[in-house]
Amino acid sequence: DVKTYGAAGDGTTEDYTAYFATVAIEHLPLAMRLEADRMAHLAITDAVVEPEREVIIEERRQRTDNDPGARLGERLQAALFLNHPYRLPTIGWAHEMRGLTAADEAAFYRRWYAPDNAVLVVAGDIDLATLRPLAEKYFGAIPARFVAARHRLLEPPALTPRRVTLESEHVQQAAWVRLYQAPSHHGDARSAYALQVLAQILGGGPTSRLYRRLVVEDKVASAAGAAYDPDALDRAVFSFYVSPPSGGRVEPVEQAIGAEIDRLLRDGVGEAELAAAKSLLQAAAIKARDSLTGPARTIGAALATGGTLDDLEAWPEHIGAVTAAEVAAAARAVILPENSVTGVLLPKPTS
Amino acid sequence: DVKTYGAAGDGTTEDYTAYFATVAIEHLPLAMRLEADRMAHLAITDAVVEPEREVIIEERRQRTDNDPGARLGERLQAALFLNHPYRLPTIGWAHEMRGLTAADEAAFYRRWYAPDNAVLVVAGDIDLATLRPLAEKYFGAIPARFVAARHRLLEPPALTPRRVTLESEHVQQAAWVRLYQAPSHHGDARSAYALQVLAQILGGGPTSRLYRRLVVEDKVASAAGAAYDPDALDRAVFSFYVSPPSGGRVEPVEQAIGAEIDRLLRDGVGEAELAAAKSLLQAAAIKARDSLTGPARTIGAALATGGTLDDLEAWPEHIGAVTAAEVAAAARAVILPENSVTGVLLPKPTS
Repeated sequence: DVKTYGAAGDGTTEDYTAYFATVAIEHLPLAMRLEADRMAHLAITDAVVEPEREVIIEERRQRTDNDPGARLGERLQAALFLNHPYRLPTIGWAHEMRGLTAADEAAFYRRWYAPDNAVLVVAGDIDLATLRPLAEKYFGAIPARFVAARHRLLEPPALTPRRVTLESEHVQQAAWVRLYQAPSHHGDARSAYALQVLAQILGGGPTSRLYRRLVVEDKVASAAGAAYDPDALDRAVFSFYVSPPSGGRVEPVEQAIGAEIDRLLRDGVGEAELAAAKSLLQAAAIKARDSLTGPARTIGAALATGGTLDDLEAWPEHIGAVTAAEVAAAARAVILPENSVTGVLLPKPTS
Repeated sequence: DVKTYGAAGDGTTEDYTAYFATVAIEHLPLAMRLEADRMAHLAITDAVVEPEREVIIEERRQRTDNDPGARLGERLQAALFLNHPYRLPTIGWAHEMRGLTAADEAAFYRRWYAPDNAVLVVAGDIDLATLRPLAEKYFGAIPARFVAARHRLLEPPALTPRRVTLESEHVQQAAWVRLYQAPSHHGDARSAYALQVLAQILGGGPTSRLYRRLVVEDKVASAAGAAYDPDALDRAVFSFYVSPPSGGRVEPVEQAIGAEIDRLLRDGVGEAELAAAKSLLQAAAIKARDSLTGPARTIGAALATGGTLDDLEAWPEHIGAVTAAEVAAAARAVILPENSVTGVLLPKPTS
């Protein structure tokens, strides 16, 4: 009902599915009733599933199959994880999506949708004394499923640099990316803080090392950066990316970013850039508090991937405590050739 | 009992487990009784599983973990199959083998070990009239499990050449290999016959194209060949391999075999080499009949991977019917860059 939900949607990651909605406070009981209904009483019939299946197939077509970068991304993920299901695209492979039945959906729903396997986050003008009775009324009434702890698949040792190349007529601009398996916050919180700082130093926007060096100073690249998302129940990914200027070749930018990576591993990071990166991260955390949905989703994501509210509260402090030695050690533990997957996206001359 | 079994053992592939034994004909009833016992009455306890688990872990250590080529092979298989369990090593990843329990083994055994999920092959001085009552007595008495048809995972389209490099101090000699997913006999019998002939032309021993050209004539390589095994329920693998001379680099042999592959795709195969390859394959099939265990295992492998006795009987005829056009078409359908995984094994200078 558009009159109830100001904005609503869902998001699915490798680790969890999230439903979210923004409602006026007086509609909260109704929204909770609707969400509880979604948790317990979905009617999963062919009549419902078939059109929705077409929707997700179309979503995949638009977001992945029509986007060479996204298709390469899927192949990189499959190359990075040898054993863990993180290797599979969250949305599914197209040929398997086409075969999804109401029975498959119902089995998934019955297995996972239950209050003891969910996290409810409410952000806004409400306190616990008001919220708790509502939560108990709507979600407490749904029987628990006693969802068993999932057997978590582990990775065998990474032994080999891997390289994946995708050439397509639909690529305008070549691009290069490199992924490394890395600890997640859940797996190793201290390394995760150090890797967040490292990603900020190397690749956090126009003042970052890679951008400044490769794009601004040496003018060899049109884009360059690094990224790390610590939210994962199991292994996370640390990545580098660089693009040549329009029409340029990949080899020179690969060499240039390789030289920066070598320099990082040799010299570590400096105190000034460390302090600047930590300040930027802490400022961004403060700024993120200015919205309602942002912090709610951050809290949900953290709790669904093994984090705690205390971790979140203390995050700026943990970031502030990261030392240059920790950043260097985390970089050297993660950035190893045998732990890497390199992806290259290339335009294909139309013949 | 060594007095009963002249030779015995087992073999596990991606698709099936085979037990085999050679016994004097008068011991056949005893051997069948023992095999039936193995099918129905194994006592799977910690006392049995724990030492056997150590045996397979040691087997993995010797055959895979201590052999850089085998370790690279595992990674290539994992890179070649994006979705299908053929991507997993048959023996298992070491860390998962260590966790195997008697309960895991018992569940596997209960699920798959049943006469309706088995093929019995007896080769030797016996006829069906004598064998059938024995089979009915020993295996017919075991309840069927009505093993459900397994859901066969399919592969998404291959889009990207992949390259996997393993460097190790234990490598004496560099090597290069390239794998392509290919139809199996079960998937597409006519293509499989053509690919068997192609592998023979390119890589079947010292008279083959690749060996003659790269090793004998141009002397750029110390070994070169091609291989294809059509036995797989789902997808099979067509592969090329080449090694530089002792101490040599990989790039020149990669270039040389690449030129041969290009020539094949451009010009196809000639009538004389086609006829010679077919004769060699047919002669090998006749020669293989001279043993007892060989044909028994061939029959078992074919029946376990979707083949029929008629297919096997008619195999020399099917090979004889393969045309040069079919070979070229099969090569062009399989040998595509986006369908390939290239593996490079390199010595690592000890530092």
